[in-house]
Amino acid sequence: MYAGEELIVDAEGCCAELLAEMRSVRAVCKKIVEELALQIVGEPQWHQFPFPGGVTGLYLLTESHLTCHTFPELRLATFNLYCCRPRPRWQWSAELAESLGAKQVRVRRVPRGLLLESATGAAVGDDDLWSLPPGSMRNEID
Amino acid sequence: MYAGEELIVDAEGCCAELLAEMRSVRAVCKKIVEELALQIVGEPQWHQFPFPGGVTGLYLLTESHLTCHTFPELRLATFNLYCCRPRPRWQWSAELAESLGAKQVRVRRVPRGLLLESATGAAVGDDDLWSLPPGSMRNEID
Repeated sequence: MYAGEELIVDAEGCCAELLAEMRSVRAVCKKIVEELALQIVGEPQWHQFPFPGGVTGLYLLTESHLTCHTFPELRLATFNLYCCRPRPRWQWSAELAESLGAKQVRVRRVPRGLLLESATGAAVGDDDLWSLPPGSMRNEID
Repeated sequence: MYAGEELIVDAEGCCAELLAEMRSVRAVCKKIVEELALQIVGEPQWHQFPFPGGVTGLYLLTESHLTCHTFPELRLATFNLYCCRPRPRWQWSAELAESLGAKQVRVRRVPRGLLLESATGAAVGDDDLWSLPPGSMRNEID
């Protein structure tokens, strides 16, 4: 029951001023959508939090969703891109360095909807701890 | 640079009919929001995909976001709850069994925004593979 992959992207050491203004963050999301040919449903939802807060953006996609939150006080931007269909890779590290001044970008790839039985070979009861089998969750610097 | 925790919840073996109708899925999200006292910003965004598709819901929160996608053909519902502030636990397994007929619920807890240097003790270069230190990402059945 594989239902696509979610990318969890944390970009650290960004320029606080860029993270605080919606224009720069929207431009990043616009580029992601265009270059990965994502299909937006309806209107993206954006919110500017009061100083010293950042911005949040949510995109409902036919492929699932793209979200972005910025934390200027931490110089941090976090993105989720959940695609239930395969998409080409995007150069998160280079792109976020250029657009937001990110010093370090971590991309985690999380498969969604893997049946527990098929992954572990046995049913797993409630409240048991469970570890993903090797290779089913990958953490990397992109 | 810890910026909260994201819960990645996959509920499998659900009732396909319930996953296909927006009313039942919205009711689940409403309950999550109410019982965890989440603060919605603006209007939640919902979309019904054409048969045999499911529904998607996105909530912009002051705490970050809640998202939900359903895949009736896979009997699967996937949720993300990203909270940049601590919240009480929710009984995902019991609640989703009751509301959507889920047979198996997996909850993965992903910390956001951990600085790579502080987690590994060394700077990590672009394109290096990197594994989370033990305990920094937990996979469990809730």
